Amino acid sequence: MSTLRLDLPGGGYPIHIGSGVLGSADLLRAPVSGDRVAIVTNEVVAPLYLARLTEALAPFDPAVVILPDGETQKALGTIDRVVGAFLEARCDRATTIFALGGGVVGDIAGFAAAVYQRGVPFVQVPTTLLSQVDSSVGGKTGVNHALGKNMIGCFYQPKAVIIDTATLATLPDRELSAGLAEVIKYGAIGNRTFLEWLEQNMEALLRRDPGALAYAIETSCRDKARVVMADEREAGVRALLNFGHTFGHAIEGAMGYGRWLHGEAVAAGMLMAARLSERLGWLAAGEGERLRALIQRARLPLAPPAIAPQRFLELMAVDKKATRGRTRFVLLRALGDAFLTDDVPEEALMALLNAGA
Amino acid sequence: MSTLRLDLPGGGYPIHIGSGVLGSADLLRAPVSGDRVAIVTNEVVAPLYLARLTEALAPFDPAVVILPDGETQKALGTIDRVVGAFLEARCDRATTIFALGGGVVGDIAGFAAAVYQRGVPFVQVPTTLLSQVDSSVGGKTGVNHALGKNMIGCFYQPKAVIIDTATLATLPDRELSAGLAEVIKYGAIGNRTFLEWLEQNMEALLRRDPGALAYAIETSCRDKARVVMADEREAGVRALLNFGHTFGHAIEGAMGYGRWLHGEAVAAGMLMAARLSERLGWLAAGEGERLRALIQRARLPLAPPAIAPQRFLELMAVDKKATRGRTRFVLLRALGDAFLTDDVPEEALMALLNAGA
Repeated sequence: MSTLRLDLPGGGYPIHIGSGVLGSADLLRAPVSGDRVAIVTNEVVAPLYLARLTEALAPFDPAVVILPDGETQKALGTIDRVVGAFLEARCDRATTIFALGGGVVGDIAGFAAAVYQRGVPFVQVPTTLLSQVDSSVGGKTGVNHALGKNMIGCFYQPKAVIIDTATLATLPDRELSAGLAEVIKYGAIGNRTFLEWLEQNMEALLRRDPGALAYAIETSCRDKARVVMADEREAGVRALLNFGHTFGHAIEGAMGYGRWLHGEAVAAGMLMAARLSERLGWLAAGEGERLRALIQRARLPLAPPAIAPQRFLELMAVDKKATRGRTRFVLLRALGDAFLTDDVPEEALMALLNAGA
Repeated sequence: MSTLRLDLPGGGYPIHIGSGVLGSADLLRAPVSGDRVAIVTNEVVAPLYLARLTEALAPFDPAVVILPDGETQKALGTIDRVVGAFLEARCDRATTIFALGGGVVGDIAGFAAAVYQRGVPFVQVPTTLLSQVDSSVGGKTGVNHALGKNMIGCFYQPKAVIIDTATLATLPDRELSAGLAEVIKYGAIGNRTFLEWLEQNMEALLRRDPGALAYAIETSCRDKARVVMADEREAGVRALLNFGHTFGHAIEGAMGYGRWLHGEAVAAGMLMAARLSERLGWLAAGEGERLRALIQRARLPLAPPAIAPQRFLELMAVDKKATRGRTRFVLLRALGDAFLTDDVPEEALMALLNAGA
């Protein structure tokens, strides 16, 4: 097992990464400060891992909330139901909430913890590759609005992140690939060495080689923690983590949340951003092709679905990354060297969208 | 005009108190850091004061959200609607939200600001006595859940509180009295000198003498700011501000939110807490009688409505102030000397409730 730390002015926390850590009662009980816990999970994860977690937390007699599966659960209506369940279980301000599941469960449980009685402690126990390398670290929580993804939420940091890499054994292939999109992202935006490692080890990752997965998760979490420590509230450098996400969120919005997995939309979005970088003369053509090849080997989509360019623009304009009416983009100067700009000529964008990206 | 400051580790803010400050464009524009603003208000306040605020903020072309009136608006469904209105008006992360209205508007707008795109700046412009002396200061925001009042929310501080005492001219008598309940609270829990001043000036306050109102608001805000500065997250002393509220919230819950005004329920709750303090031997009988006389002169209820004792206990048990299964109470040793305890024998509580409090 390895442990990273994410330190912030408001208090840091450990990120434990290892195979089988879900069986470690000591590790799971360490972040509990009060004498009550509640677990939020979903109907897919519960049959697989809930018993192990409840057993480890048995002395606290955990309350359990089991949600339906899927991105459509990320809505205020779910927060209302989760809070209702906490109240019925008599959870008080000293109750620690455990999020057991993927990114959707973590976002919902984290936001519920942030707003329940104006904030109770919570712990992330991510069980998908995407949540292990990205969403469980850094304190972004929230739900969607009908008019935009992740429009309602808080920055609210967990007390610990506990990553059991053994849970990836039960992850569907499609979700493994979706998680790899965010792994590739870390390489593309700021870690060329890691990108080269991924080029050499993609097959090992796809066949779920434990050592390769552990290294990819640890490197991703370390890169993410470094960025979050430098800029918790996304006033600057943290925005680079949104590489591929402005396009990706528009894809998710156009298709209806959940039809494309988040990682799939990000993969197509990263390639759109790379092509835009090429069109604007920032990125050499061979670099974009190299990213494309890696994403293809990860079995991820290489182009967005058919969306009318005007609709695509509207969906991007409502994205959070738009400030003062201008959409901000994360573009590439090279693989491993991303930058932020709101100075993208409309014509270049339209040409990209008209070309079917 | 007078200005107090509330300083906190995460950044302080001014509290401006004066007659006619709603006409001061400089004062209202000072806390705006970006180039966009949105105003959240309701259908009762809008016809009275919205034009003045939009005029002062005209250069920012404010988006406006007008809610129906009433405590029933404090629900997640309203947050969904407000966020939708922000999105339709293309409000970005640099938009400053103004809350124009009473405590309900301030709680909703503040919570919407706290969670919109994970937090945008906001300014409190309270127009009722209750919100001017209490809810606009200190950063408590949130909405109700069907199972409990203020169960969903955040600590989220405004960038400024701008209190125009002239708005009290249009306040209904019943709401003026409700606000006086919280004013009396400050005297009862920690400021005996102020309580004596209230005994001497209650008639001036009821006939809305501007000097008396300004003094009462300023003293209340100063007392509240001092407590919040010492304990922003209610880990200790801030809980004293809940004097009368454990009983009061149960009254509101039993009657359905909005049937009793919050201040009315707090008034009856303060007297229940005083009687409980007497029963337990903490408070001399004459002191409770003195509080009763003051509350009566403020034209506030002296006893709760008929609620079965068992139901009362259940409603109190779900209150946020309950920790580890025990309900915490704010009791009095004397007028001006409150303390916190979770050691109230069930028999004393039942005797109080059976006596019709």
